[in-house]
Amino acid sequence: MAVVGVIMGSISDWETMKHACDVLEELDIPFEKEIISAHRTPEDMFTYAEEARGKGLKVIIAGAGGAAHLPGMVASKTTLPVIGVPVQSKALQGLDSLLSIVQMPGGVPVATVAIGSSGAKNAGLLAAEMLGAFDETVAENLENYRSQMVDKVEGMRSDLRES
Amino acid sequence: MAVVGVIMGSISDWETMKHACDVLEELDIPFEKEIISAHRTPEDMFTYAEEARGKGLKVIIAGAGGAAHLPGMVASKTTLPVIGVPVQSKALQGLDSLLSIVQMPGGVPVATVAIGSSGAKNAGLLAAEMLGAFDETVAENLENYRSQMVDKVEGMRSDLRES
Amino acid sequence: MAVVGVIMGSISDWETMKHACDVLEELDIPFEKEIISAHRTPEDMFTYAEEARGKGLKVIIAGAGGAAHLPGMVASKTTLPVIGVPVQSKALQGLDSLLSIVQMPGGVPVATVAIGSSGAKNAGLLAAEMLGAFDETVAENLENYRSQMVDKVEGMRSDLRES
Amino acid sequence: MAVVGVIMGSISDWETMKHACDVLEELDIPFEKEIISAHRTPEDMFTYAEEARGKGLKVIIAGAGGAAHLPGMVASKTTLPVIGVPVQSKALQGLDSLLSIVQMPGGVPVATVAIGSSGAKNAGLLAAEMLGAFDETVAENLENYRSQMVDKVEGMRSDLRES
Amino acid sequence: MAVVGVIMGSISDWETMKHACDVLEELDIPFEKEIISAHRTPEDMFTYAEEARGKGLKVIIAGAGGAAHLPGMVASKTTLPVIGVPVQSKALQGLDSLLSIVQMPGGVPVATVAIGSSGAKNAGLLAAEMLGAFDETVAENLENYRSQMVDKVEGMRSDLRES
Amino acid sequence: MAVVGVIMGSISDWETMKHACDVLEELDIPFEKEIISAHRTPEDMFTYAEEARGKGLKVIIAGAGGAAHLPGMVASKTTLPVIGVPVQSKALQGLDSLLSIVQMPGGVPVATVAIGSSGAKNAGLLAAEMLGAFDETVAENLENYRSQMVDKVEGMRSDLRES
Amino acid sequence: MAVVGVIMGSISDWETMKHACDVLEELDIPFEKEIISAHRTPEDMFTYAEEARGKGLKVIIAGAGGAAHLPGMVASKTTLPVIGVPVQSKALQGLDSLLSIVQMPGGVPVATVAIGSSGAKNAGLLAAEMLGAFDETVAENLENYRSQMVDKVEGMRSDLRES
Amino acid sequence: MAVVGVIMGSISDWETMKHACDVLEELDIPFEKEIISAHRTPEDMFTYAEEARGKGLKVIIAGAGGAAHLPGMVASKTTLPVIGVPVQSKALQGLDSLLSIVQMPGGVPVATVAIGSSGAKNAGLLAAEMLGAFDETVAENLENYRSQMVDKVEGMRSDLRES
Repeated sequence: MAVVGVIMGSISDWETMKHACDVLEELDIPFEKEIISAHRTPEDMFTYAEEARGKGLKVIIAGAGGAAHLPGMVASKTTLPVIGVPVQSKALQGLDSLLSIVQMPGGVPVATVAIGSSGAKNAGLLAAEMLGAFDETVAENLENYRSQMVDKVEGMRSDLRES
Repeated sequence: MAVVGVIMGSISDWETMKHACDVLEELDIPFEKEIISAHRTPEDMFTYAEEARGKGLKVIIAGAGGAAHLPGMVASKTTLPVIGVPVQSKALQGLDSLLSIVQMPGGVPVATVAIGSSGAKNAGLLAAEMLGAFDETVAENLENYRSQMVDKVEGMRSDLRES
Repeated sequence: MAVVGVIMGSISDWETMKHACDVLEELDIPFEKEIISAHRTPEDMFTYAEEARGKGLKVIIAGAGGAAHLPGMVASKTTLPVIGVPVQSKALQGLDSLLSIVQMPGGVPVATVAIGSSGAKNAGLLAAEMLGAFDETVAENLENYRSQMVDKVEGMRSDLRES
Repeated sequence: MAVVGVIMGSISDWETMKHACDVLEELDIPFEKEIISAHRTPEDMFTYAEEARGKGLKVIIAGAGGAAHLPGMVASKTTLPVIGVPVQSKALQGLDSLLSIVQMPGGVPVATVAIGSSGAKNAGLLAAEMLGAFDETVAENLENYRSQMVDKVEGMRSDLRES
Repeated sequence: MAVVGVIMGSISDWETMKHACDVLEELDIPFEKEIISAHRTPEDMFTYAEEARGKGLKVIIAGAGGAAHLPGMVASKTTLPVIGVPVQSKALQGLDSLLSIVQMPGGVPVATVAIGSSGAKNAGLLAAEMLGAFDETVAENLENYRSQMVDKVEGMRSDLRES
Repeated sequence: MAVVGVIMGSISDWETMKHACDVLEELDIPFEKEIISAHRTPEDMFTYAEEARGKGLKVIIAGAGGAAHLPGMVASKTTLPVIGVPVQSKALQGLDSLLSIVQMPGGVPVATVAIGSSGAKNAGLLAAEMLGAFDETVAENLENYRSQMVDKVEGMRSDLRES
Repeated sequence: MAVVGVIMGSISDWETMKHACDVLEELDIPFEKEIISAHRTPEDMFTYAEEARGKGLKVIIAGAGGAAHLPGMVASKTTLPVIGVPVQSKALQGLDSLLSIVQMPGGVPVATVAIGSSGAKNAGLLAAEMLGAFDETVAENLENYRSQMVDKVEGMRSDLRES
Repeated sequence: MAVVGVIMGSISDWETMKHACDVLEELDIPFEKEIISAHRTPEDMFTYAEEARGKGLKVIIAGAGGAAHLPGMVASKTTLPVIGVPVQSKALQGLDSLLSIVQMPGGVPVATVAIGSSGAKNAGLLAAEMLGAFDETVAENLENYRSQMVDKVEGMRSDLRES
């Protein structure tokens, strides 16, 4: 049963958001993914947020770009933690996405990560950390993931010596 | 019967948004005003947007600050024109409000005006212009309003000569 | 007879502004289009603005980039609603266009939309919404347009499931 | 026993960070607070992060301003979720704090909230949401908190009618 | 007979623009000053620009704030050099004024100076420099002005030694 | 004999600055061009500025990018008008160049134009306007240039009708 | 004999730059201070830079605001390390100062610190660190200074416990 | 024996940071280079900083991008001078890197250079300048390097004459 819901405003956000899903898969965390558009399918968005806790979700990851309202509006309809991923926009390169997501008024938080693919990847890891605070297995998987990151640095060091 | 609806996310936005109401009053345009918070009362926001056309509104003016989602979300639930007023925020001085309102994705427009009180005043005038395209009386009132603006410039010219 | 006038400062803006015209065409709204340069043909600009209401226009859509003065100057010469489209500029990517259009002083509003093609598309929709507040047929066309947007989301959902 | 750790780089951040503590108190969530400076007491920072999980913390809230390294560096030393609060800085008003916290590279996430006091308040709520995903009582307290927010909107509506 | 025309969009710009006039006075350069609002008195603006050369002006200094169109529009109607002074705006502190003035499209230049009072002062000096390229007396006055600036540095040095 | 001096910090600025020279050539204004680097050849820069008036220059056009000090430093060593062209930089796309040139302290003005090629073109035109305030032939050439700009708009209008 | 030279463009920068001098004093490092204006006294600037090494200076600290050219121009005339302090400006709050100082082209570096008083303080410390790399006493003084910083954190911790 | 340590957060930073190493090589300054990731190998970072002085390093050059914590954190663990190179990031093009590095709080300085390759090159030169303040040979090498820069300007001048 999915414990993380990954939603995005458009199929064009998938190239970014798949990095969140890849991490969740790698860490063995069951998730679901869906297109939920704040501006085109607002009722679906409300329904999704209202039903999230009931169907067993523990965290929602929402990605959107430009005047990005999806993460904040979902957050207004659930007390589950919502992670917002600012998708890089064309003209302002994600600065608009970032500010639309992170500058939430007091009362309704969105856990915002970096613009673009790195942010999406970190959204997956952050969701895992939230679960891992209560779930030993996930915590261990995260520790392993970190160890592999250190190993990669070792690889980079060899590459640098040879450059 | 109100033809313009003026809504804002918080009572703290009133100091800005009253400038919209003042203009509407001055131009003899019936309006209603209400607190509708996107993040605290999302259902009220949807209901307001859904009922707007039916109760005779022709335009909605929505003011909000920070990660300002009210104008865009109202716009997603009605095909009436929605004017967005970016309220000046504390840290980023309204740049966040502006980008959250104006950078709407293709499909759901928000007619955005300037940050702060000048923007709110212009929101009132813009609403009047939309009405005045179909209503001779409003169009005349707008012409008179413009004439008074010219008169004020004349007054400024005297002031400058005396400075 | 055209009810919407679409003007732009240069033929190079057409790639952006055609998105406004496409939407108007799709919604069956008669429009005219023209090159009107604020800085190269200022008199034409004034004439255009002055004659707009008389020849039956209800809304003007004006696109320009950089120090974009066309929308605001047209707005200063007519009480018809003017929609401003910030065309993406080379160095500052449309931030200059956006601020030059949206930050109008109190008294002369410009209804500003997003930078670039999405903004132009939304300018067409916003014009339609202004008309649709008084014209049942346009309002219905807009509702249909929205329905098609929802259908597209359904298509995206299939795509995502298959990704 | 504290389940949330609230840390900040300097006593001057307390005016901001107390809003996080106020919310945690209001929601009956045990927390501890401490000054941990990334640049002045880097070893304390590492020790704090390393011991956090062992002593029962489930979430860490870290506030800092300017080149704000505390949240990201703590995050690099624990797999507990870390919430970063960008404290408003003097010259750049928190834009530097925000970017230093949110733009973390892939691999080490920080859950970033808004600049300043609203962000700190939301950090408290976000921590509660993370706990509430697994703890019914906290979830209920959050629901009550939301209800009170709606009640406050009702109060604002009266105020607006009387304005 | 005035050789420099100093114009501004509103009496509120006078506090800034008087610094231009002070310098012109100090350098013994005859000037005239007037309120010319691009958006409220567009015809006056055109007339002013068209008549400028004929009545003996050699340079025009134009100050405006926000979506500042006055300098660029005057420049579009005369081939006299136009100096633009970005008046500091409330929300965006003159960044909007600066970009609206300086980012003119190829074909119609505006000689832009710094935001606010220093910029206005420099506008006066720049006008004098343009005149001084052809007028020995003005050139000498400018040299004297520069000498006084050096003297002031000497004064500052004493102050610093005593601090 | 050259009346305009066009200088730039590096040969890499030539792609931008040639647009200034093209305009001067088109308007039949004698000019000279040279590489003068503020940071690599500071003495040459001072010598150039000191000798400019004596050898008959009436205006200096200086282009530079990044921390662009050439225009301001030349301006500090001559009372001839100096036009600054912000060359588009790699990382910050000319915002750094623009601010380094335009934000001069009171006392030493630089006439700043737009970032990049359009700015360089306008620098040539602005220099011509300064000369044309005192030289009938240049003024006429400028009027002709403007007429050709209007003709180009006519051409664009045909293109648009056919698009 | 002074080993650090502290220079600034105007007496108004002293309020910022004294923080550099306070630190140098505290660390027992002999320094001199002077007003050197890049734009008003360019020759003095060149002389200062040329003579710096000869008279025994090891580092120069230069503070300036707006289009801040002093640090970079001094750096172009000496191969001693130059530390640049961006003084907070009025309109753009030091962003212009920062970019004018830090974005130096390849070939002539300026060691840039933070905007304003914290930056000035750090300029003093950075100068000390450069000296301390070769001078044991300075290195020890720096270690002591760091220890006191840690002690201050202890004091803050008491304050927080009592808050 | 290395006197300069060049470190970077990832192998992807090498394309930027090699410009620092190239300069050091050209100036005959012994250096070492290594991958040290603030977020992936925080302990290595601390060890590196702690051992730097003991093994003979006089300066550390640290490059990082995005929320760039490496330079500031290394600086917090050593009293050697640390030069920070902001690596150009994808979405915000290095503005985030720059602010994360330069806006250090009072007490722990980082000598920040320009974003990207030019900055890296300047980091190498700045390190050399710090050494050259105490080492005649390095000082002479730097003078020669400067002379070659002047020679290159001469070459550019020929190119310009032929263009």
